[in-house]
Amino acid sequence: MLTGKDLTIEEVVKVARDNFEVEISEEAYERAKKSRELIFELAKKNVPVYGLNRGVGANKDRIIDEQFFHEYNVNLVRSHCVAVGPEASIEEVRAMMVVRLNTLLLGCTGIQPEILLMYKEMLNKHVTPVVPERGSVGEADIACLSHIALAMIGEGEAYFNKEKMPASIALEKAGLKPVKLGPKDGLALVSSNALSAGEGCLVLYDVDNLVDLADMIYSFSLEAFRGNVSPLDENVNKARPFPGQNESAAKVRNYLKGSYLWKPNIANALQDPLCFRCAVHIHGAVRDTIRFLKEMLLIQINSSDDNPCVLFKQEDIKSCGNFEPISWTIGFEAVGIALSHLSKASCYRTIKLSTEHFTKLARFLTPDPEHVIAYGTIQKPFAALDAEIRHLANPVSMDFYAVAGEIEDHANNTPYVVQKTRKIVDNLYYILGIEAIHAAQAADLRKNEPDFNLGLAGQVVYEEIRRRIPFLDKDRNLTVDIQKAYEVLKGGSIQKKVNELLKS
Amino acid sequence: MLTGKDLTIEEVVKVARDNFEVEISEEAYERAKKSRELIFELAKKNVPVYGLNRGVGANKDRIIDEQFFHEYNVNLVRSHCVAVGPEASIEEVRAMMVVRLNTLLLGCTGIQPEILLMYKEMLNKHVTPVVPERGSVGEADIACLSHIALAMIGEGEAYFNKEKMPASIALEKAGLKPVKLGPKDGLALVSSNALSAGEGCLVLYDVDNLVDLADMIYSFSLEAFRGNVSPLDENVNKARPFPGQNESAAKVRNYLKGSYLWKPNIANALQDPLCFRCAVHIHGAVRDTIRFLKEMLLIQINSSDDNPCVLFKQEDIKSCGNFEPISWTIGFEAVGIALSHLSKASCYRTIKLSTEHFTKLARFLTPDPEHVIAYGTIQKPFAALDAEIRHLANPVSMDFYAVAGEIEDHANNTPYVVQKTRKIVDNLYYILGIEAIHAAQAADLRKNEPDFNLGLAGQVVYEEIRRRIPFLDKDRNLTVDIQKAYEVLKGGSIQKKVNELLKS
Amino acid sequence: MLTGKDLTIEEVVKVARDNFEVEISEEAYERAKKSRELIFELAKKNVPVYGLNRGVGANKDRIIDEQFFHEYNVNLVRSHCVAVGPEASIEEVRAMMVVRLNTLLLGCTGIQPEILLMYKEMLNKHVTPVVPERGSVGEADIACLSHIALAMIGEGEAYFNKEKMPASIALEKAGLKPVKLGPKDGLALVSSNALSAGEGCLVLYDVDNLVDLADMIYSFSLEAFRGNVSPLDENVNKARPFPGQNESAAKVRNYLKGSYLWKPNIANALQDPLCFRCAVHIHGAVRDTIRFLKEMLLIQINSSDDNPCVLFKQEDIKSCGNFEPISWTIGFEAVGIALSHLSKASCYRTIKLSTEHFTKLARFLTPDPEHVIAYGTIQKPFAALDAEIRHLANPVSMDFYAVAGEIEDHANNTPYVVQKTRKIVDNLYYILGIEAIHAAQAADLRKNEPDFNLGLAGQVVYEEIRRRIPFLDKDRNLTVDIQKAYEVLKGGSIQKKVNELLKS
Amino acid sequence: MLTGKDLTIEEVVKVARDNFEVEISEEAYERAKKSRELIFELAKKNVPVYGLNRGVGANKDRIIDEQFFHEYNVNLVRSHCVAVGPEASIEEVRAMMVVRLNTLLLGCTGIQPEILLMYKEMLNKHVTPVVPERGSVGEADIACLSHIALAMIGEGEAYFNKEKMPASIALEKAGLKPVKLGPKDGLALVSSNALSAGEGCLVLYDVDNLVDLADMIYSFSLEAFRGNVSPLDENVNKARPFPGQNESAAKVRNYLKGSYLWKPNIANALQDPLCFRCAVHIHGAVRDTIRFLKEMLLIQINSSDDNPCVLFKQEDIKSCGNFEPISWTIGFEAVGIALSHLSKASCYRTIKLSTEHFTKLARFLTPDPEHVIAYGTIQKPFAALDAEIRHLANPVSMDFYAVAGEIEDHANNTPYVVQKTRKIVDNLYYILGIEAIHAAQAADLRKNEPDFNLGLAGQVVYEEIRRRIPFLDKDRNLTVDIQKAYEVLKGGSIQKKVNELLKS
Repeated sequence: MLTGKDLTIEEVVKVARDNFEVEISEEAYERAKKSRELIFELAKKNVPVYGLNRGVGANKDRIIDEQFFHEYNVNLVRSHCVAVGPEASIEEVRAMMVVRLNTLLLGCTGIQPEILLMYKEMLNKHVTPVVPERGSVGEADIACLSHIALAMIGEGEAYFNKEKMPASIALEKAGLKPVKLGPKDGLALVSSNALSAGEGCLVLYDVDNLVDLADMIYSFSLEAFRGNVSPLDENVNKARPFPGQNESAAKVRNYLKGSYLWKPNIANALQDPLCFRCAVHIHGAVRDTIRFLKEMLLIQINSSDDNPCVLFKQEDIKSCGNFEPISWTIGFEAVGIALSHLSKASCYRTIKLSTEHFTKLARFLTPDPEHVIAYGTIQKPFAALDAEIRHLANPVSMDFYAVAGEIEDHANNTPYVVQKTRKIVDNLYYILGIEAIHAAQAADLRKNEPDFNLGLAGQVVYEEIRRRIPFLDKDRNLTVDIQKAYEVLKGGSIQKKVNELLKS
Repeated sequence: MLTGKDLTIEEVVKVARDNFEVEISEEAYERAKKSRELIFELAKKNVPVYGLNRGVGANKDRIIDEQFFHEYNVNLVRSHCVAVGPEASIEEVRAMMVVRLNTLLLGCTGIQPEILLMYKEMLNKHVTPVVPERGSVGEADIACLSHIALAMIGEGEAYFNKEKMPASIALEKAGLKPVKLGPKDGLALVSSNALSAGEGCLVLYDVDNLVDLADMIYSFSLEAFRGNVSPLDENVNKARPFPGQNESAAKVRNYLKGSYLWKPNIANALQDPLCFRCAVHIHGAVRDTIRFLKEMLLIQINSSDDNPCVLFKQEDIKSCGNFEPISWTIGFEAVGIALSHLSKASCYRTIKLSTEHFTKLARFLTPDPEHVIAYGTIQKPFAALDAEIRHLANPVSMDFYAVAGEIEDHANNTPYVVQKTRKIVDNLYYILGIEAIHAAQAADLRKNEPDFNLGLAGQVVYEEIRRRIPFLDKDRNLTVDIQKAYEVLKGGSIQKKVNELLKS
Repeated sequence: MLTGKDLTIEEVVKVARDNFEVEISEEAYERAKKSRELIFELAKKNVPVYGLNRGVGANKDRIIDEQFFHEYNVNLVRSHCVAVGPEASIEEVRAMMVVRLNTLLLGCTGIQPEILLMYKEMLNKHVTPVVPERGSVGEADIACLSHIALAMIGEGEAYFNKEKMPASIALEKAGLKPVKLGPKDGLALVSSNALSAGEGCLVLYDVDNLVDLADMIYSFSLEAFRGNVSPLDENVNKARPFPGQNESAAKVRNYLKGSYLWKPNIANALQDPLCFRCAVHIHGAVRDTIRFLKEMLLIQINSSDDNPCVLFKQEDIKSCGNFEPISWTIGFEAVGIALSHLSKASCYRTIKLSTEHFTKLARFLTPDPEHVIAYGTIQKPFAALDAEIRHLANPVSMDFYAVAGEIEDHANNTPYVVQKTRKIVDNLYYILGIEAIHAAQAADLRKNEPDFNLGLAGQVVYEEIRRRIPFLDKDRNLTVDIQKAYEVLKGGSIQKKVNELLKS
Repeated sequence: MLTGKDLTIEEVVKVARDNFEVEISEEAYERAKKSRELIFELAKKNVPVYGLNRGVGANKDRIIDEQFFHEYNVNLVRSHCVAVGPEASIEEVRAMMVVRLNTLLLGCTGIQPEILLMYKEMLNKHVTPVVPERGSVGEADIACLSHIALAMIGEGEAYFNKEKMPASIALEKAGLKPVKLGPKDGLALVSSNALSAGEGCLVLYDVDNLVDLADMIYSFSLEAFRGNVSPLDENVNKARPFPGQNESAAKVRNYLKGSYLWKPNIANALQDPLCFRCAVHIHGAVRDTIRFLKEMLLIQINSSDDNPCVLFKQEDIKSCGNFEPISWTIGFEAVGIALSHLSKASCYRTIKLSTEHFTKLARFLTPDPEHVIAYGTIQKPFAALDAEIRHLANPVSMDFYAVAGEIEDHANNTPYVVQKTRKIVDNLYYILGIEAIHAAQAADLRKNEPDFNLGLAGQVVYEEIRRRIPFLDKDRNLTVDIQKAYEVLKGGSIQKKVNELLKS
């Protein structure tokens, strides 16, 4: 049930990935209708309105007359199709659509209400336009969202269920008729940050889960390392009340339920390397930046990013800059930096896990120093992926220049900022996966240590890894193991099982 | 009055810059005393404690025996003096000291209470150690803060009032005696993020002011540009409820009180370039990141960054990673990115102010197109300074590697992150200053336009600029003007006068 | 005919892409055989040799005894398979193989000569191992090249012709038998920069072609712009004898043969924007950095990157660091920076081509200002792709930390550096393609200008574009046009036709 | 003796730093005179020439008439004074002046010959204008060089010898009269890359020396480390014929003359960490990039960077883009990246020198493990300075946007690129200094090892360090030692003595 005001990240994910159906609240629909009426009144009065009876972009000086409304809006949609591949995934396009539909419900566009229903129907009947995901500098994703509009008027391509076909046929198969555009519809359809915001919701959701996963794997590694739990102590963390740190510390204490690490004099050392000792601070910093980003992104998906802004209560329409997504774009840049820290912490934990003078286990966790090389070379792939993350974490939002007749002299490159964060997340499944492989090997090597036993999360991670990847007793092709670990982590079974255990 | 718990950014600034005196709350002092007693008890019991009866860093395996306590702590202070110039300013060192004193009051270090008094006395009697400001990777600023400790034991150099001299003499002149170090005092003195946090408080305070200043200059530029006020409309901004944006919009509406721009049909164009139209969004994004940073930094200066952490209530002491400053370090990186956007917006406004087809004034705001070149070449210095800002806004917190026997395998480069933000702010006084020069020239050129008049802030900016820099009637050395504008902006008189007017 | 000493970039491309057959020179083969004999002598004498009778990486302290030679080398190959997808393309793997085969011929490895023949046969019979292209930090690409070795021993996967299958079957289909590894073979197979160098040769070849293409499109744009040819004057360029600039200027003068621009008083302005005026300097800077890179990369593919280095003339084998690819890695970073400049110059030319006060044509090159929006929004995709290029041009070679027991404390991330350059090149086909679309539209709009006619290259670019993309007479889906322009440019027909015309 | 054609980097340094006198070759002076005559002829004919009878920058459409020549040129100089501090040093301004004087001799500007003499006199009589060094985006350093012109006409400030005063007085004290500007003089004075090129020559000279120094310190460290010399073997390096690597290897072999490392079975390990093993490759990569940069920069200082370009042989003057410094700007960016690698290699060598399991010496090179902490914390300052270098090595040349009426839509930020390289070099004196401190301490701790003795360069570095910094027998303030080591290295005595010894 969309109202324009209370869409959550989780709901976007449910619609996008789990095919939940959407409904439009009656109140919101009424609001949109009133807003539409206002548009017609203004058009009648010949008040100059950008995108209604005036051109858009640098063409804002051009007058659009009434007879030309339909054709102009079709032209606008077509001429705004200036995107570059690759295609966004079906789930990403669905995320865009539900986000855009929600913000349209605020009544700030004056779009025809039939188009709102069209969004709903296409979502519920699985018609998903083909949208190339590059081409927008983020100052409204007009270059890409135009492809959703294109499909709505029966042009371009779309998926019906998972099959690609001409949009006109996809609509037909779903029992839908193409939309006929009226005044200002074109602008309302294309001018929104819904591509960035839609993809952003999915990425944010994944980052959020990733931090939990990182905490779980860290708790397992700490056990494999014979590390010190004192930095996790509740009072110690209260003395440093960063919210993210304290959340991670509390979670890790839970994840370590039942672990041998809580027994006295267990740890190998008085003070562990910082990658272990500061893990909850570092993971917590990701949480802190996520919190900031989430606050900003929730405003985005529940507010108007339209220009001009229809104020139907005031019976007015005003030129503005509300398509500006800068605050949450910077939020993504900050999350990227935080994830680069998380990545390095994971890499360093893995290095430590294979270093004999830290673990008191054999070098590179070999089960047989004379005959098995084991985890030596594997340090290179995580270092290489971590370098990619470092590179991706460089900001790019401020790299723009004036376009469109010098008018558009600010930008954020928001789609790319979101997409590089998505790439960082993907790399991290590998990096944390390799950490988990190491911890599992170390755990196996410790099996005979009399006091050793795993806590709640450690046990789950161990089992999930071992379900796919056996103990390394002799050298084998590890490329295969790395890929399996990636799949285990990305598949989500670890978090699912840990959280179930915690609830029970 | 310091309690360890409620120090504000403003108070740090008052102590650092305005020489406010500090007091230590009795409760806090008692807490510190109890914590000290606990230290002695633990030492007696021979519980192994990092930095007390065990070495620090990779030497945590070395036993320190009781007779060696004083000498060990002096050695520790001396050997931790590994910093590199330039010197921090007197106000910055004072900021470090008040921050460190406050966090010591939480009782998590077990430092001898006499040292607390020493901090207080040195602050109140204007003895300021010489502290080179580079050398720390931010994982506690031990390489630099050691110089404060060095001065306390009468070694190294210090300022008494504003004169540099051997620390022993400075103490003597102030009527103070060098401290005699006991167990764990060395570690407690050097191990803290107080350099980064102290300098950080000053920078954050300045950034906070800078955004207000940017809003004031923007409001003046908008008048000089004959820009559109519709993006500032309260309802328009409510439709996009980013806190920073709405704060800037509300402020700018106030700054424009009395301006001709509120009259109907004033603006040159239906839609202004984004540097004007999205200014409150962009400035607001700086506010949004500041809000995040401030939340984090306030935790830093009111919590313990000590390792090990003395828990006197639990009569325990625990190894930890609480010196980790990552969350607010990333906050500074994010603020830097946001400021890079603000910088570009100011630059583009200045470009637009000198572009004839936007302003309908003469090119480069020349008063005499035939004989005066005016503001042509001046676009280069702001573009050059903006490029510096772009460069400084690159993140650096994740550029580290393991040191100290591989133990310290996480870092944040926090001092440098803070210092590059300080540099960004300094450059922005120039960039906004050049914008103000342009707006003042344009305002003068518009003087004869019948409907033209300035609002509250515009009038103040105009007068403050014109107090130092006359109208450009013929070509002159503008290097001088740029420097004057910088001084006007940095001096703070604009904000002071605007805020006074708003209150009255 | 490979000798180890005179492989060219063009030859690598011919083998990789055009399936040229390879031969091994007799002299080189003899050299390799002698080197192999030396290995066995040293092994007999029990001289400790890294990778022969001692372990590799941090295991260099482990003794490998003779009976264990085969198994050890198989283990080494398997355990070094630690790569991460995506797969390198078939042509890229072929480039790796020919590069590695050539450097093996220098006789510095002591590899068994049968393996040299195996490289040759696999190349000539189209057996191409599946090689995931990530996982190496560039300090020899052992994590990835191990997959070529794996296929040689009949494990893993390979393509036979273009079909993927188990390597053992691919070998069988090609009539080849798996290799049986002897001492030091494993190390010789995996330890080389051949992945980076092989992919690097292809990328460098493409960059080289891209600059020619950029010069051609620039010459066309200059005609479409009615620009000034004086910056191309031979004497003017001699006064500034940068080799790249002068090469581009000479080429562009040729490309403009027959153009109306050489007539007097043609240009719209005395001085053009720098994107036109400095184009040959900017394109020339790419040439200058290419020249540096090519010099370095040619050394790489014709020299030994082996450690230890077998010196068969001196009958010695020495530990060394010859796998270090730093000089040409930095060459790629520099080329990336240069390409970012080239990209911005192309973008700005396109902006200028659609700006009416520069071209004296209609805004956004519309054929009908009242009814056709034309090339307005299209500025966003190239700006977005250019921002990606700016981001990719950030260096990453120095982002590493010590791995493998702290031994490998230098790296270059060379594969990623090469791969990001490859991505930059790909984006540039879009960006230059959009420039060409604009120039073609402007040329059509100028058709009626009496003095207008195109020169040699302009005519070719125009025709090649128009062969796929018709004149824009009304608004249409431009995503399609952009993709077509990309294909035209990437296809290589423009350079081919221009160069043929120039020869005739 | 300046001819316009054969100025070397070393000569620039000699004039700038060592106050060598300059002469102008007669041939060059004649060339300049002819060029001047051509200007007057063109002016008479009313051929439109940029900066002569037409305005500059976006004002190129403005006509300048003859009576207005003097005033216009003075206006031009004044209005181009738009720079920002800090001041360039006296030696840097002298470098700018000799570079500019040399390129003026090519006769491409038509400047009045008296001004050439003025440059010469000011250099030889030690009148040095005050030049703020920021404000140029590098597309000719007009914003800054205008201050040299300003001093020439007796305005602004200048140094006479080392005292700052009004320029008019400085000229008077030196017995010089202000210049009276004629047509095109203003443009010729301000429009050049001489600031970047002048500062660039000094920086390049210093980098060149720094690599030698790095090789010397590396050879000393290798001795202190008991490292392996096999990677330095001549034949091993011939197998990898990168010019820089081979140059460094040859030099280091010389530096190690007489060293105990050449004896058999000396090294602690079969294979050293890469920071040692690949040192000549890494230092060599700096040499390779320097070679590229030097080739480019020599073209810059011996060619015309003027626009328009006077072609006196052809009796023509042509608009052009010859002020474009892109090729050598990218050269500086590449050198910065290479230096970041060199920095990390030095840092890692220092880490290894204080790691007991590599050196077989005590941890942190303490002379007394029980009582002296020694070189533990000192790892932080070099890591912090290295992070700064990493940050400075980020490119910035492509961060620009169109200014000056959209005409100047390319830039390079060359002054800042040069200045950040200067900063990198300065940091490296600290980093290499700390490495030398460690090597000296290790050498002292090895004194009793029977086979230990230092080679030629090691002995010099040891002595130069020990001349200022005694053996660390107990903990002391190391900030002082670090500063001393910096001064020793920057002072140049090490290279001087080593090179003298090598010659003898």
